[in-house]
Amino acid sequence: MDRFLVISSDGHAGPRPEVYRDYLDPQYREEFDVQHAARMDALDRAGGLLEMAEETARWATGKEHGLAGAWDSERRNEVLDADGVAAEILFVDGLTEQNSPPFGGDLGLVPMGANPELQWAGARAHNRWISEFVAQSPERRFGLAQVTPFWGVDEAVKEVRWARENGLRGIMMPHLWLGQDAYHHPKYEPLWAACEELEMVIHFHSGAAPAHEYFGAAIFAPQQSTEPPPEMPGALGIYVTEVAWWLTRPVVFMIWGGVYERHPRLKTAITEGTSIWVPELLELMDHRYTEHHGTAKLGTGYKKHLKMKPSEYFRRNVRVGSSVMSRREAELRGEIGLDTIMWGTDYPHPEGSWPKTREIMLETFRGLPEDEVAKIIGENAADFYGFDREPLEAIAERIGPERSAFRGVDS
Amino acid sequence: MDRFLVISSDGHAGPRPEVYRDYLDPQYREEFDVQHAARMDALDRAGGLLEMAEETARWATGKEHGLAGAWDSERRNEVLDADGVAAEILFVDGLTEQNSPPFGGDLGLVPMGANPELQWAGARAHNRWISEFVAQSPERRFGLAQVTPFWGVDEAVKEVRWARENGLRGIMMPHLWLGQDAYHHPKYEPLWAACEELEMVIHFHSGAAPAHEYFGAAIFAPQQSTEPPPEMPGALGIYVTEVAWWLTRPVVFMIWGGVYERHPRLKTAITEGTSIWVPELLELMDHRYTEHHGTAKLGTGYKKHLKMKPSEYFRRNVRVGSSVMSRREAELRGEIGLDTIMWGTDYPHPEGSWPKTREIMLETFRGLPEDEVAKIIGENAADFYGFDREPLEAIAERIGPERSAFRGVDS
Repeated sequence: MDRFLVISSDGHAGPRPEVYRDYLDPQYREEFDVQHAARMDALDRAGGLLEMAEETARWATGKEHGLAGAWDSERRNEVLDADGVAAEILFVDGLTEQNSPPFGGDLGLVPMGANPELQWAGARAHNRWISEFVAQSPERRFGLAQVTPFWGVDEAVKEVRWARENGLRGIMMPHLWLGQDAYHHPKYEPLWAACEELEMVIHFHSGAAPAHEYFGAAIFAPQQSTEPPPEMPGALGIYVTEVAWWLTRPVVFMIWGGVYERHPRLKTAITEGTSIWVPELLELMDHRYTEHHGTAKLGTGYKKHLKMKPSEYFRRNVRVGSSVMSRREAELRGEIGLDTIMWGTDYPHPEGSWPKTREIMLETFRGLPEDEVAKIIGENAADFYGFDREPLEAIAERIGPERSAFRGVDS
Repeated sequence: MDRFLVISSDGHAGPRPEVYRDYLDPQYREEFDVQHAARMDALDRAGGLLEMAEETARWATGKEHGLAGAWDSERRNEVLDADGVAAEILFVDGLTEQNSPPFGGDLGLVPMGANPELQWAGARAHNRWISEFVAQSPERRFGLAQVTPFWGVDEAVKEVRWARENGLRGIMMPHLWLGQDAYHHPKYEPLWAACEELEMVIHFHSGAAPAHEYFGAAIFAPQQSTEPPPEMPGALGIYVTEVAWWLTRPVVFMIWGGVYERHPRLKTAITEGTSIWVPELLELMDHRYTEHHGTAKLGTGYKKHLKMKPSEYFRRNVRVGSSVMSRREAELRGEIGLDTIMWGTDYPHPEGSWPKTREIMLETFRGLPEDEVAKIIGENAADFYGFDREPLEAIAERIGPERSAFRGVDS
């Protein structure tokens, strides 16, 4: 091939709020109207969050045609073609015209402040919609269902099976438990078993963090508050400092908890939290697994159930979706793991590479070994997710970035 | 001087439980008897924690003479002389014969599960005792009061003043807030102001972590539970992976919250969490402060109140107490910060260097530039804490490690 096969590990899709309403079971639509109005109203009083919404709106101005790819199937393929991207992993959206799934069924799936029944209703509205969206272009779309494990593990397993039967190939789970049981708890065993059996890839996606610590408790239930949140200086700076750490936490719990020891074929992706933390985290866990002096007082019982070092589970079972990765990350690809990194565009989000994906890819990868670039921008994802290569390569041959352009001397 | 001046940034002292009982206000002694019995009983049912207590007891066997330095003033100076240490920063103990201050007034000062009045009673019992212990050898002992800010900021400020008037020069504060307001909240302003005014150094010390997430909720209130905690595989592995991160969190909140901007002379030490995380944390915070693309949607309002980069506050206001640091940390001293690191022994804890401090120091530092070693093992602490150098240097001239021994070629 003269062109690269590009797969974005990080795409977002979701319809506008009024369409989500139609995908809700009818008994939840009245509550939707109440909460949607309250949410729009709360946004007006939300300080830092308002500035955030305004910045996003400013960025979106003039990009309406392309942004409609968040929900319009043909438009999306048109955008992807222009960007050089053959296929995508599809998460919920939430930034494009306030199109989060309702009732906290969104990218965070945060349990704090959520009503379990309603959160499931919102998640299912998305799962139905994304299932149809994937079916409109199945060879290019790897769709994820929203699944929360906190309101009954059986319920979560049921949704995993529904998703598999409806053309979805993975799930997105919350990475914050905030008062619920963490992921080393044995109660989640049936969920890990179902995902392994059905080859459903588990995803954690950046964004949620304990915002109640940064902004005050009202942040997770703005519609219940009539007061503006207190002025908390630096809250957003703390958020952007910590956000990737919260994202990586579930895998730390799952590795030490023996989840990958018991489920060697269970796959997990950690998306949009950079990949810069990988070497240090693996070194730290392995150090804690092998060294003795510093942890002598802990005995050795805590690691008996792990036959391999933590990093070995990570390398076997986990991949990292690094969206719009930096040149520094590309240069550290050896330490981060050449087979670990899966590049992503984060389309249609303002911090993503769209609509300049081709240029940004060149800046990031020009001059690096061609086979290594190929792995990072597409082949790792193709292997990990088990994409059907033939139709994708036909698409890539037509729209993929030309390999020759990357052969600069700019290393 | 032919010998190094050594100051340990990390020492622990505290009397046995029955002595703490005497230092409690009388009205709390009956409750002490009840809770102390329940605590000893709960330990027998505590799974991984029991193994931990047994390992510590095994290590302690045969070391009783030296361990008595945890509460015996003369014994402590004898131990320090043998170890080559001239002076110490003194935190509470808790490992040596179960000698934690009562009622959660311990090294964690964790608010979760604590009774505010009792926690203060336990903390004050320690503060009275440590004040007397410091007075028995004031030139060698920099004592810290236990201060929790969660049960009223005025109460905390009062205790800071009491501590200053009673010969203590700093405070130890909890690094977990667990449902209480975090340290960027404006309500803590009078506490930061008091510490700056009175030159009381704020300390955070490793140990506490959200153990309720690792082991189940009963862990912070074992005396209220009659059941053994659930079997949570890997809980201790998760704990040792995360523990340093939790320790560093308060300073992230304080830097972004503008605490050091408003209080340029406020000093903070972060102790026994290694120093290996310093370069990456500072780079991450500075990146978040200066870059634009990834945080464009946040606007710029979140950093307007900071005149300097986060790393500049850190370098000016913060020091890191790195106990029994590794050779790798010593080799990375340039990136970590030659003025940032303050070496410590962690005496009398099993993961510390006692009774082999002289040998371990040699292994860690041999062959490195002498003036840099001198800073790390003593002079940084002497400057930061404002020790009276003359009496310390007289002690060091008698018992300090000989500089010549460090001039090996083993770099």
